[in-house]
Amino acid sequence: MSEPVALTFDVFGTVVDWRTSVAREGRAFGKRHGIETDWVRFADEWRGLYQPSMSRVRDGERPWAKLDDLHRESLCELLGRLGVVLGEGGLDDDAIDDFNRAWHRLDPWPDVVEGLTRLKRRYVLATLSNGNVALIVNMAKRAGLAWDAVLGAEVARCYKPQPDAYLKTAELLGLAPRECMMVAAHNDDLRAARALGFRTAFVRRALEYGPNQTGDLRAEDDFDVVAESFIDLADALGV
Amino acid sequence: MSEPVALTFDVFGTVVDWRTSVAREGRAFGKRHGIETDWVRFADEWRGLYQPSMSRVRDGERPWAKLDDLHRESLCELLGRLGVVLGEGGLDDDAIDDFNRAWHRLDPWPDVVEGLTRLKRRYVLATLSNGNVALIVNMAKRAGLAWDAVLGAEVARCYKPQPDAYLKTAELLGLAPRECMMVAAHNDDLRAARALGFRTAFVRRALEYGPNQTGDLRAEDDFDVVAESFIDLADALGV
Repeated sequence: MSEPVALTFDVFGTVVDWRTSVAREGRAFGKRHGIETDWVRFADEWRGLYQPSMSRVRDGERPWAKLDDLHRESLCELLGRLGVVLGEGGLDDDAIDDFNRAWHRLDPWPDVVEGLTRLKRRYVLATLSNGNVALIVNMAKRAGLAWDAVLGAEVARCYKPQPDAYLKTAELLGLAPRECMMVAAHNDDLRAARALGFRTAFVRRALEYGPNQTGDLRAEDDFDVVAESFIDLADALGV
Repeated sequence: MSEPVALTFDVFGTVVDWRTSVAREGRAFGKRHGIETDWVRFADEWRGLYQPSMSRVRDGERPWAKLDDLHRESLCELLGRLGVVLGEGGLDDDAIDDFNRAWHRLDPWPDVVEGLTRLKRRYVLATLSNGNVALIVNMAKRAGLAWDAVLGAEVARCYKPQPDAYLKTAELLGLAPRECMMVAAHNDDLRAARALGFRTAFVRRALEYGPNQTGDLRAEDDFDVVAESFIDLADALGV
């Protein structure tokens, strides 16, 4: 088996710890606007609306909408449930937009920057995320993630696990699927990529959903690499 | 006037010296395959077929084709003119593909890496080139160009100076055109971007077409910045 040329990365959960970061942003937002709630639970609920919101795009119930827009709709729904008045006489658009961009300000897991720096020496590092380009670019700029290319859902105009999200990313890189290795903390994502010919690396993120996480605690299939961190992944790939 | 958030870069001629680099690759290719010609002139002729090849896509004479494919067609035409036999009994596809990827191996002008490193501290640096994603990614990897995003023609599926190449790049960055500054060594490119609301920076590349260059020797319009190099551009923008 020849070497892969590019590593394509899932981002939310695999590269960044969205839960802790969104909760941190929520606490600051709450303080600024006098809103009290359990912000970790809020982060979980916000994330809970992620798959349903993409499903409506995948199923053709609505035209293409980028993740920033889906996140914002979910945010407004959750703030409404908390009794927060939005718009005139209440929270204005700028405040909502700013909190929505919490997803642009997620912190990487502690092993990520070092791991990516090593992996970048040998491989093309591309994102293959459902996050839109601006979100991933702004996150990378803030966190120091040295991607060679930001691809995935928005440029493919479809959400993982739909095949075109993977296939168009490989195509834009000028590579066959077998020349790409999908890196993710989620079995479903890796299974979808593998079915299309991608190689696969499972990186365990046992705290993505907090201490009581039940899913994705281990690789459920015979993926090419199983690693505990990006440093471990670099070790496994010999870079 | 508020600051731009992103700088969007033309690449061929502005960032990299395609003429010297393609001629260098040509000499190596010629040596390998016993083909003798003036490789600087060959580079000029190859580049000469660039605009006509894109025009056929722009005019709808043919469906979308990425620049690697247009480059390859032009290359085969030029090799044919030299009497080189292609295909069976002659030069094989791998040899043609490898020379075609000369455009992935272009050297930057000497001021580029230092200039980009400074500019990256404050701005999102995105390519807005007619080059396809793989071409720009491979070039950046080899030359150490630290783009935050590789966008432009292929993701917009249209070639500059058509408006969507600029507008879709800004949209993918989540920015209004006025938040983007187009950086180019070509007056036409900057005029097209400015007509859409982009800010503009002209960087003079008086040797792009060699010592006898006649066009683009000076900024022909009142662009926001006029610079002699990327270092000069960084100075002008105060970073």
